Amino acid sequence: MENIEVSKALKKIAPNIHRTPIHTSSWLNSQLDAAVFFKCENFQRMGAFKIRGALHAIHHLTDKQKENGVVTHSSGNFAQALALASKSLSIPCYVVMPSNAPQVKQNAVLDYGAEIILCEPTNQAREKTAESVSQKTGATFIHPSNDLNVIIGQGTATFELIEDIEDLDAIMVPVGGGGLIAGAVLANKELGNKVEIIGAEPFEVDDAYQSLKANKIQFNKTINTVADGLKTHLGDINFPIIKDDVSKIIRVEENEIIDAMRILWERLKLVVEPSAAVALAAVIKNKKEFRKKRIGVLLSGGNIDLSKIGELFVEK
Amino acid sequence: MENIEVSKALKKIAPNIHRTPIHTSSWLNSQLDAAVFFKCENFQRMGAFKIRGALHAIHHLTDKQKENGVVTHSSGNFAQALALASKSLSIPCYVVMPSNAPQVKQNAVLDYGAEIILCEPTNQAREKTAESVSQKTGATFIHPSNDLNVIIGQGTATFELIEDIEDLDAIMVPVGGGGLIAGAVLANKELGNKVEIIGAEPFEVDDAYQSLKANKIQFNKTINTVADGLKTHLGDINFPIIKDDVSKIIRVEENEIIDAMRILWERLKLVVEPSAAVALAAVIKNKKEFRKKRIGVLLSGGNIDLSKIGELFVEK
Repeated sequence: MENIEVSKALKKIAPNIHRTPIHTSSWLNSQLDAAVFFKCENFQRMGAFKIRGALHAIHHLTDKQKENGVVTHSSGNFAQALALASKSLSIPCYVVMPSNAPQVKQNAVLDYGAEIILCEPTNQAREKTAESVSQKTGATFIHPSNDLNVIIGQGTATFELIEDIEDLDAIMVPVGGGGLIAGAVLANKELGNKVEIIGAEPFEVDDAYQSLKANKIQFNKTINTVADGLKTHLGDINFPIIKDDVSKIIRVEENEIIDAMRILWERLKLVVEPSAAVALAAVIKNKKEFRKKRIGVLLSGGNIDLSKIGELFVEK
Repeated sequence: MENIEVSKALKKIAPNIHRTPIHTSSWLNSQLDAAVFFKCENFQRMGAFKIRGALHAIHHLTDKQKENGVVTHSSGNFAQALALASKSLSIPCYVVMPSNAPQVKQNAVLDYGAEIILCEPTNQAREKTAESVSQKTGATFIHPSNDLNVIIGQGTATFELIEDIEDLDAIMVPVGGGGLIAGAVLANKELGNKVEIIGAEPFEVDDAYQSLKANKIQFNKTINTVADGLKTHLGDINFPIIKDDVSKIIRVEENEIIDAMRILWERLKLVVEPSAAVALAAVIKNKKEFRKKRIGVLLSGGNIDLSKIGELFVEK
């Protein structure tokens, strides 16, 4: 793990990503008696940090591999990310999606020029279909979060945040598949390990919390959360990185996620997805611990179905 | 009108405002075959451009006037703007609000430390109450849009936009009371009159369109629009500025406002209020005219009741 350089990854992918801005709220800072810095990956291309890892993974392919393209299975942000990254770098892209994936998500992938292969909506069918596409086309399989080059790519978000904001005490990262937080660990290491990396998870999908506790990858028993980007589990490549250097995972309730999301929308005027709000919810939940501290918060993305938000923000 | 300097106003108010960022969307630009630059006043303090004019008006008071404070009547953004500006500059502030003003708006004004005087919900009662508060307290009345110092202050938003983005062909400005667009005219004049200033209005409240046509201030017959910030009418101070130098007013339908708002939320991840979306709706409506052009769009604010947005964004 000695020669991993997130800075090198950033140089490679920089032409194809936005260096996203960092927003603050004086109202929120005074409420928390702390300084919170939001890294706005909702403003990233395709609306989430995932384009970073997708681009970096493709950069590491050989010319021959690039010619044959890439394949992944995802119904979420990574499908769009790999499709857009492939388009940006002019390589073929195949996305395996469950047949019940919303039309809007299918359209987004098609818009970026990728080919969609539908399968039965089970994990087994997804994996099998992706494997068969890979065999047929020669496309390289890229996992959304359990792939070292993807992880390093996601680390560039944290790298930029630490570069842009001096003297951060901690960075709060939402944990789903584990790619973003494992990348945060690697970026922090390269920059001198001066920041505490903390994970944030809904109680409803607390597999990372349980995995750290058991020192072994655990799986979610329930996935009944509004934070639909965090339903996946850690993998054998990111877990070893996470378990050594993430100080802890803070778990939050569903209503705390909605409250945090409301603050981000109402006060900061940012459209963020619930998964991103989980990180702010964790800061608010442990606000005593963060008093007088400088805290970075990774707002992972802003892809949300607007026709569904009426249900979330009911009158109080 | 020769010595009006928006640049001077900007220097005065700069310590108390944000220089708001300019956002773009490559997706939108390719859809329109144009380059659109959004001036994000939704990220301004109190969530709208109005703090600029409020601050500038207060700066122009004598010391004695400042001691006695300011008064306005408003149930919208200007009430919050004057309250926050007064707080920032440590002067007393009185806000006359109709007794049916939503509690959330009253609370926002109280949060900024202003005193609220409730009145009957009629224009006549508002004006009379404001006058009586002024007489009793010695506070100076500040009109939300028909006040030259307010207008010059609002002009700083356009001044920043023209300074930040080279070679703009046009700037699209939503028109309500007329302060923002009159300020845009003054800023543009000071910077060499190189940009076309265009107004945007809902058909439902097209008083500015009708006023330009009649060459005389006209009033709205209906106010049945989602763009609640644009229901007011022009005044004798801003109308002369507007009628000479605004090239035209583009009117848009209610569904076009919602569609534009959806783009701003979904694609640009910006929480904006319907009034702000009116300006983008006008660009989209006249897209043939703007092909290959560089267009600035003033996103006037982002104050919206989230519990109401479910109704706006219904599934298509």
